[in-house]
Amino acid sequence: MSPVNRRLSELAEEIGGRIIGDGQVVIRNVASIDDAGPGDITFLANPRYQTHLKRCRASAIIVGPGIIADDSVPPKEKGFLEIADPYLGFARVLQMFAPPVHYDKKISAGASVDPTAALGADVTVFPGVFIGAGVQVGKATVLYPGVFLGDGVRVGNDCVLHPNVVVRQGCSIGNRVILHAGVVVGSDGFGYAGHGDERIKIPQVGVVEIQDDVEIGANTTVDRATFGKTVIERRAKIDNLVQIAHNVTVGENSIIAAQVGIAGSTRIGKDVTLLGQAGILNHLRIGDGATIGPQSGVPHSVPPGVVLSGGIAAAPHHEWLKVIALLPQLPKLWRLVRALEKKVSDLVKGGDQNHASHVRR
Amino acid sequence: MSPVNRRLSELAEEIGGRIIGDGQVVIRNVASIDDAGPGDITFLANPRYQTHLKRCRASAIIVGPGIIADDSVPPKEKGFLEIADPYLGFARVLQMFAPPVHYDKKISAGASVDPTAALGADVTVFPGVFIGAGVQVGKATVLYPGVFLGDGVRVGNDCVLHPNVVVRQGCSIGNRVILHAGVVVGSDGFGYAGHGDERIKIPQVGVVEIQDDVEIGANTTVDRATFGKTVIERRAKIDNLVQIAHNVTVGENSIIAAQVGIAGSTRIGKDVTLLGQAGILNHLRIGDGATIGPQSGVPHSVPPGVVLSGGIAAAPHHEWLKVIALLPQLPKLWRLVRALEKKVSDLVKGGDQNHASHVRR
Amino acid sequence: MSPVNRRLSELAEEIGGRIIGDGQVVIRNVASIDDAGPGDITFLANPRYQTHLKRCRASAIIVGPGIIADDSVPPKEKGFLEIADPYLGFARVLQMFAPPVHYDKKISAGASVDPTAALGADVTVFPGVFIGAGVQVGKATVLYPGVFLGDGVRVGNDCVLHPNVVVRQGCSIGNRVILHAGVVVGSDGFGYAGHGDERIKIPQVGVVEIQDDVEIGANTTVDRATFGKTVIERRAKIDNLVQIAHNVTVGENSIIAAQVGIAGSTRIGKDVTLLGQAGILNHLRIGDGATIGPQSGVPHSVPPGVVLSGGIAAAPHHEWLKVIALLPQLPKLWRLVRALEKKVSDLVKGGDQNHASHVRR
Repeated sequence: MSPVNRRLSELAEEIGGRIIGDGQVVIRNVASIDDAGPGDITFLANPRYQTHLKRCRASAIIVGPGIIADDSVPPKEKGFLEIADPYLGFARVLQMFAPPVHYDKKISAGASVDPTAALGADVTVFPGVFIGAGVQVGKATVLYPGVFLGDGVRVGNDCVLHPNVVVRQGCSIGNRVILHAGVVVGSDGFGYAGHGDERIKIPQVGVVEIQDDVEIGANTTVDRATFGKTVIERRAKIDNLVQIAHNVTVGENSIIAAQVGIAGSTRIGKDVTLLGQAGILNHLRIGDGATIGPQSGVPHSVPPGVVLSGGIAAAPHHEWLKVIALLPQLPKLWRLVRALEKKVSDLVKGGDQNHASHVRR
Repeated sequence: MSPVNRRLSELAEEIGGRIIGDGQVVIRNVASIDDAGPGDITFLANPRYQTHLKRCRASAIIVGPGIIADDSVPPKEKGFLEIADPYLGFARVLQMFAPPVHYDKKISAGASVDPTAALGADVTVFPGVFIGAGVQVGKATVLYPGVFLGDGVRVGNDCVLHPNVVVRQGCSIGNRVILHAGVVVGSDGFGYAGHGDERIKIPQVGVVEIQDDVEIGANTTVDRATFGKTVIERRAKIDNLVQIAHNVTVGENSIIAAQVGIAGSTRIGKDVTLLGQAGILNHLRIGDGATIGPQSGVPHSVPPGVVLSGGIAAAPHHEWLKVIALLPQLPKLWRLVRALEKKVSDLVKGGDQNHASHVRR
Repeated sequence: MSPVNRRLSELAEEIGGRIIGDGQVVIRNVASIDDAGPGDITFLANPRYQTHLKRCRASAIIVGPGIIADDSVPPKEKGFLEIADPYLGFARVLQMFAPPVHYDKKISAGASVDPTAALGADVTVFPGVFIGAGVQVGKATVLYPGVFLGDGVRVGNDCVLHPNVVVRQGCSIGNRVILHAGVVVGSDGFGYAGHGDERIKIPQVGVVEIQDDVEIGANTTVDRATFGKTVIERRAKIDNLVQIAHNVTVGENSIIAAQVGIAGSTRIGKDVTLLGQAGILNHLRIGDGATIGPQSGVPHSVPPGVVLSGGIAAAPHHEWLKVIALLPQLPKLWRLVRALEKKVSDLVKGGDQNHASHVRR
């Protein structure tokens, strides 16, 4: 953490919120609620964890509405900052205190830069970077060692491309984009025509467009389009080891957790959440605001706002073996139950007839 | 796209098929059916999308048999090319029009090449490549920046190894192989003996053999064998982020979609299709021509030609919660139904006896 | 294999066990039971594969207790080594015979080493390595081409970091650690606060600590902690393409198979086994010695020693379609069966009453 000293009241001016208790406490650092000590600020978003409050030794705590009772008397030299979204407030404070990374804003002699490439002001190019013909890199962007930018690639301003990121020819990266180590952008889409010995590769002549403020996790792969573009719209956030196939669109503000796979030509809407290891088939549309649970498989398009799940909770192994042995027999079970229904219904009628016959008799 | 001008009739001579309408239209480019305009060629394989035909502005369309009625009168300056497999025909046309990539066929001074390595004619070695002792590289092969070839690696002719591909010692790569960025070939198989503190690593002394015309997607990993070889047979096509464990064989012409995992010593036959995120356990045999659906888990060997699935379609979250709560109770449900069956069967018999007693009486 | 000649009796002295048959056979190599010939040693752990013994041409075979009957007469020039854990014995023998790798123990002029970095004795640094400010590397450690060590990284003794491994700033690696090609350690945890356009990144100010004797497979990613540490405890073994999220702890001796995903802040205990493609949700505890089956999803904490499964065996596609169509109707099926039960129970009672009335009459 950087050597920043701020009073809680000063933080409140920047991020908003209402101070309860001592606004004059001096904050030097940020910590988790369990690790925080004097001089630290932390946060409590979930009322369920309120018991943590008592033993928390932080000088200041960002809290949600209602966490601190209005009539409570906070201890001396302790302040609370009540704010509608305490996690967001905490993230803002953390951004103030996070140690800035200093780059030397130089083009390393150990990098290979094509003479036709155009690099903006204050760009940092580490050794071992490769920059192809006609590449454009915006101002203050950082290219770590082992980054590869193919011919004609455009990268915007204030981006960070971590070590060994590969962006193949013709692809474009917006502003303030973060690509974590080992990300591959613009690998060929997976497309073949014909069968067996006659199978041939379909040339992938499209590109990838990554818009502003996107962040993509380590070793994630984004294939180029067969034609046109694979698009990651602005502010989408993608975790590690995700597969984005050719011609996919990921809508703005969407969140994709680790190891998700999205097959070719599928359109993910805006504000969509795909949880870990989910798989989305090709040529589908996932509507705006939809949420897909972890490990869920999605074979059909999904309307906006819907929450789908398909994951199964692991169960004790020996019991689960019995369950999965019976699963394939589900159709038989249904037939059996239907047949029983019929028999029982006949019996009920028969009973009535019996009864009727008794009456008649 | 490259500046190629071809008449439709010329294309027909190369790829075959029957021209309907104007064979003299000049084709300058290839596009998808929605984006195509004058001067473009596109294709329509699926009769279901025939409505696209009407509004398609392409100069030429490759179509399957029966798409264009024999008695239809095509508009002027528009030609159709009817062919048995229009997607294959389209891929061939696309290969003609795709822009060729030009390599400088030089060994960069920024590469590290062991003096004992033998590089064929017209090989291109970018800066930042590492080539170990005794490596052999065939003619016209391209090694992009960051490629690592360990000691004794052999790579055939006309291969493309994209940036940051790693091929560890002793492994071999055939001809016309494409390894996309970040592929790792020859990492150690995952093998340990013993338990707890006594666990020790089993040295992985085997290699990987990748045969001709294989293509492997970005960040996929292929482990070396414990003994002998992990083999990817010719013309197999593997997508991104796939895991191929030690001693696996992938049969020729097989297709493996993204994020599939194949555990140790399993043999995948020829012409097998493994769809996205499927997982195959160790020591199995997947028969020739088998297909395994997306997200499917395969715990047993599979006979040739079989189509298996195990994936589940995601359902509305609240309904799915009820389903997975009941899943573990499936054995109980069966017992219940069996008991009911017995009771109903007794009742039916009892009813008959009742009836019989009435009759007797 | 290296040119090592050892008598079986000498091997027995090193690894223990009882010789049956000829202890004087000379061993020159190690092979699998099917490939072994004269001069080779192999092993047979599983009595089920005893039929392999007959046709095995190896000079020596390491076997488990009871595989060779006490009264059997082994053929001449053939020896057996009976040992409690034959696989462990075999691994030890393999370690003796595996060819040692020789490193030149030099710092390549083609590496970028910050002047403030401290490298121990006998360290090998290949070309294309990047070592940042304040980095410490222990003795005899090997850094392959393309390895990136960010500022302040510490790496212990006798480690091997394979090509293109990335360790970002401030992270620490113990002794005898093996990181396979493309591993990323210390990428940012996946954390954002706020929603939609207001979403902001939570700075990830923690680190990763990888303890002694850990091995991590190719292209696996280990995110740094938001605060504090993500920890991989000593002797944990992690396979390829695994995702370890921020603030996770993986306990000592645990085994994690390929493509597993572990979400943020989850604690994996000691001696835990997670099989391929399993997914563990965030903020959970997996107890010591627990085993989680392949493809299993774990949404709740798991007590020590428990064996859980959640994977489904793939079934014939057309039958499976019927099963998954019925799965969402499981709640309805239960209601139906409950209703039937009631009806049948009423009928049984009614039948009794009927019977009673007959009797009464």
